[in-house]
Amino acid sequence: MAKADLLIVHAAELATMRGPAAPRRGKEQADLGLIPDGAVAVVDGRVAAVGATDAVTAEYKVTKSNLIDAGGKLVTPGLVDAHTHLIFAGSREDEFERRLLGASYMEIANAGGGILSTVDRVRAASRTELVKLARPRARAMLEHGTTTAEVKSGYGLTLEDEIKCLEAVRELAKAERLDLIPTFMGAHEVPREYASRRHEYIDLVVKEMIPEVSKRRLARFCDVFCEVGVFSIDQSRAILEAGKAAGLQPKIHAEEFKSIGSAELAAEIGAVSADHLMLISDRGIRSLRRTATIAVLLPGTTYFLGGTMYAPARKLIEEGVPVALGTDFNPGSCMTLNMQAILSLACAQLKMTPAEALVAATINAAHACGAAEFVGSLEPGKRADLLVWTAPSARYACYQFGVNQVETVVKAGKVVGE
Amino acid sequence: MAKADLLIVHAAELATMRGPAAPRRGKEQADLGLIPDGAVAVVDGRVAAVGATDAVTAEYKVTKSNLIDAGGKLVTPGLVDAHTHLIFAGSREDEFERRLLGASYMEIANAGGGILSTVDRVRAASRTELVKLARPRARAMLEHGTTTAEVKSGYGLTLEDEIKCLEAVRELAKAERLDLIPTFMGAHEVPREYASRRHEYIDLVVKEMIPEVSKRRLARFCDVFCEVGVFSIDQSRAILEAGKAAGLQPKIHAEEFKSIGSAELAAEIGAVSADHLMLISDRGIRSLRRTATIAVLLPGTTYFLGGTMYAPARKLIEEGVPVALGTDFNPGSCMTLNMQAILSLACAQLKMTPAEALVAATINAAHACGAAEFVGSLEPGKRADLLVWTAPSARYACYQFGVNQVETVVKAGKVVGE
Repeated sequence: MAKADLLIVHAAELATMRGPAAPRRGKEQADLGLIPDGAVAVVDGRVAAVGATDAVTAEYKVTKSNLIDAGGKLVTPGLVDAHTHLIFAGSREDEFERRLLGASYMEIANAGGGILSTVDRVRAASRTELVKLARPRARAMLEHGTTTAEVKSGYGLTLEDEIKCLEAVRELAKAERLDLIPTFMGAHEVPREYASRRHEYIDLVVKEMIPEVSKRRLARFCDVFCEVGVFSIDQSRAILEAGKAAGLQPKIHAEEFKSIGSAELAAEIGAVSADHLMLISDRGIRSLRRTATIAVLLPGTTYFLGGTMYAPARKLIEEGVPVALGTDFNPGSCMTLNMQAILSLACAQLKMTPAEALVAATINAAHACGAAEFVGSLEPGKRADLLVWTAPSARYACYQFGVNQVETVVKAGKVVGE
Repeated sequence: MAKADLLIVHAAELATMRGPAAPRRGKEQADLGLIPDGAVAVVDGRVAAVGATDAVTAEYKVTKSNLIDAGGKLVTPGLVDAHTHLIFAGSREDEFERRLLGASYMEIANAGGGILSTVDRVRAASRTELVKLARPRARAMLEHGTTTAEVKSGYGLTLEDEIKCLEAVRELAKAERLDLIPTFMGAHEVPREYASRRHEYIDLVVKEMIPEVSKRRLARFCDVFCEVGVFSIDQSRAILEAGKAAGLQPKIHAEEFKSIGSAELAAEIGAVSADHLMLISDRGIRSLRRTATIAVLLPGTTYFLGGTMYAPARKLIEEGVPVALGTDFNPGSCMTLNMQAILSLACAQLKMTPAEALVAATINAAHACGAAEFVGSLEPGKRADLLVWTAPSARYACYQFGVNQVETVVKAGKVVGE
């Protein structure tokens, strides 16, 4: 008998997400790698074994205090949030009200509100202040089941302020228990001081920010808001190519407010993910089908902006594009940090099945974050990030909404809150 | 100086909802009765005083342990959920998945699923079992800020089973701290055994159930599901008239899946509320405008059923119909118990302002439950049901979604959880 540090037994549904070392697409998108009456043995913060409770307990033993009986409950990997803007200062509830009374997101942005109002607040804040503001948010994410999250810069928009934000991500990751994967997004918006010389700002991003971020190893990805009135297809291509050359893998905010061919750009440039895609065209879908690019869908944003035009999740899955999910947590277009709210939206509004949504929120999101080697599924050798739910099944977890259904969060083998 | 049992001071926004003893309509719908730096003094479980902190603390004192400093926070009356089906057994996550794959709610109902599958489970359960199942739900409602809720029968559909459900509501109200207001809804569906003799079931409701429920004083309201394929306009009228004659005030599930003139029936019969109204016609709105009937909107149901056709809240408010909100908590068409999720939906999707939504979820919902004399606003003499939020304002409370923003619940003057 081997000794385990933690043993979870008798899960009604153990959704392992085990499978090939690639994003799940098509029919695989619904494969939970389900083990009924399942168990997980944890040794040294990693998954040592998964299987039927009988088999795992025949091999591993623990002291009673390290045994979790998940009888009647769902057990899954920790949720992975594939898209957040977690580092910000200030809030924009005033804009939220103006928008529901009729102003559009782009109108508010064009009137000097929107992203740039958050930029003002972030520039005025120190790195320490940004971390202090983000800590309770990160803790709440963990309490709601998110154990890994991608985090973007993009509210600094100067060399120093972008660096400050990415350093804040690093500091936050040290201070809190969830894993954070940093993305450089200097091309989130053009700052006011460059409004009349936008090309100079792009030069700044390409020639100064990207090299410095790369040199300091502050980010894994480079993202760009490719949108009418923000960065064009050609500008986005130039920025993402510069990022790639400096070792930052490309991501794109694509087809969010207008359909302009940014999904095709994602395919062309070999983006790790194309995010949003509310307005992706059939041609865009076909172009992604042949690539490794993951469609990161963010239904919270459509919901929060008061829209009803959700991304065509069913079509993407049916065409074989792997789908992941994220909150898009940010103060302007999606004020939620809770991936369970996103699972509900993915089913009720995107018409993904609960199984597809859970795969999207774990292993596929891990792939979209470049973290699938370590997290996103419960397989021997991977980090023991897992959730015991109050819900008895994947279906139930996506069916009930509005309450936190995560009972116990295990992060790197340790129960959170103990 | 008078002695208070509890004193809440320095609320950034104290939303009292004080005002006339009638449902708020038109511009009043947005009147929070706001007091900046507000305070509430509680004596004997009731509100003794509300006002600016300076004024209230000049009049009332408390021991330190009975003082809540709500500095930087929103304080509101407890939320009132104007429409629930809280007493049920079993869950219907299988149906949820079938529906998102394309089956309609009415198709599932016509195939013997839907309400009737819950009826089978409820008939098989004892009153004690029903109460046991509902207790954690009621506690979770309270933790999320609901201090008063309307609860319907309607999953029994025999005389004994309807009585059992209403007795379960009464027993639940004694066991848990939130106030529950019972509604008899024998006309929720026609049970299978009466499928080929629907008129006999209506006779049973009218001649046996209503008199018995009335005699035993088990309900305050009588509700009917007025819908194509369920109860027609004429059948609904007959049932509601019988209820009225027996002292049960009428409510109607109206214009939910088809627009058939049930809002006009609500107006004609003097219903306390017309609920759902997704498909209310302009004529229906005009007919409600001249009455005391409250429009109880249930956006969680539209959301959960995967629809995008929400009730025309703006038009109702602009035409002067008072609007209230409810969860519609039930296992088939809206699996949430959290009124905060409904506030978010009311703003993001119904385009109600945060102020309108909070009035709808407190004083107007109290009117829709016939409980406005005691709850729904913070005014001297009313029950001290109130919430201290983590949110600093009404706007913020409706802007952030997916997390429980209620920090402290005070029910009849006592802090819940202490």
